[in-house]
Amino acid sequence: MTTPQAKAIVLLSGGLDSATCLAWAMQRYHCEALSFSYGQRHSSELVAAKRLADAVGVKLRVIDIDLRNVGGSALTDDAIDVPEDQPEGIPVTYVPARNTIFLSYALAVAEVTDSQAIVIGVNAVDYSGYPDCRPEYIQAFTQLANLATKSAVEGQPLCIETPLLHLSKAQIIQLGATLGVDYSLTVSCYQADADGRACGRCDSCRLRKQGFINAEQHDPTRYQNH
Amino acid sequence: MTTPQAKAIVLLSGGLDSATCLAWAMQRYHCEALSFSYGQRHSSELVAAKRLADAVGVKLRVIDIDLRNVGGSALTDDAIDVPEDQPEGIPVTYVPARNTIFLSYALAVAEVTDSQAIVIGVNAVDYSGYPDCRPEYIQAFTQLANLATKSAVEGQPLCIETPLLHLSKAQIIQLGATLGVDYSLTVSCYQADADGRACGRCDSCRLRKQGFINAEQHDPTRYQNH
Repeated sequence: MTTPQAKAIVLLSGGLDSATCLAWAMQRYHCEALSFSYGQRHSSELVAAKRLADAVGVKLRVIDIDLRNVGGSALTDDAIDVPEDQPEGIPVTYVPARNTIFLSYALAVAEVTDSQAIVIGVNAVDYSGYPDCRPEYIQAFTQLANLATKSAVEGQPLCIETPLLHLSKAQIIQLGATLGVDYSLTVSCYQADADGRACGRCDSCRLRKQGFINAEQHDPTRYQNH
Repeated sequence: MTTPQAKAIVLLSGGLDSATCLAWAMQRYHCEALSFSYGQRHSSELVAAKRLADAVGVKLRVIDIDLRNVGGSALTDDAIDVPEDQPEGIPVTYVPARNTIFLSYALAVAEVTDSQAIVIGVNAVDYSGYPDCRPEYIQAFTQLANLATKSAVEGQPLCIETPLLHLSKAQIIQLGATLGVDYSLTVSCYQADADGRACGRCDSCRLRKQGFINAEQHDPTRYQNH
């Protein structure tokens, strides 16, 4: 339903999922990538986002956000440890309202750049514990977005694209492989080192490793010695 | 419907409207105030917010946000002049997705502080040109909020209180007068000087001045010499 001129803002974290989203979106939209610097422990993600955007010739906008003043998550709060086992329910790596904050900024950028879509790599399979990764959450944000902005009011609707919503990690990797994503450029680990090498033990590393095995694809992830 | 223990996050800009909201909320909730530093030209607003919070003994949290990287508004973009006349339609002082970004942070803070309400001074009378000041926008954000967070999923709903939604400026001032708001502490001007003195000419100044006249209340606003 999109014309070649349609523009999209792609949320790019530097991880495997958002890299796949960017490749997916580039086949459909003129893309601009958006990353957030939010005091995340794994800031090597931002380096990866820049490498990914450069590799495909897309502009990357980085917005500084202040989640440390909010607190409450193992990903931004030094007082909470990143767990190595996935507990029941909502994980401590959940960042309060993170996707809502990210999508709100994306909405602002979409309006200023006259874009028709926001592309986000939320996934309801592996991240079922995160309330803001569910389809009903995305639907509610779409409704909000189409009431919130000058462009929406003036008749240009905005759509939130979630190409990974119902895919398993293996299916995401298979999709990326068909789109030619270079996963060696991505960092998924919650506690990667300064060179972007993964710990191999956190939830995110385990999911990713198993994904490559299940997808029967070569895993180019670089690990720390341990 | 609220117990004395219910907590609220009150968005406090330092202007007349949010000062009235804070006074309103303090009669109903245990309050924490939330302000944003977003490269606004009228940073004297932040000084006013601190004075207002101190005057009533409420904690003020200030979150730095990066709207300059978004651009597109006379309030954050030096290349766009603040107009002295109100044009038809959506004004250039509209900041893209601003209330959505503000409410998203408030949602995160509400979750971390275990609060049951967010109080925001949006007004559909004087700001009818702003899409994110309309009742249907607030309804959509409430729906989103109740899908977005761990607390909502675990059964603690969040409400967005908008006590000024349908009031005229004069009615807001009358409400504030009955609540004992000290309006000499507030700054509404889009281009106030470092001492918080108002220009007397911008849209916001005109609305405020006329509000005090219509409300038949003493106007304590300090103006620049001009």
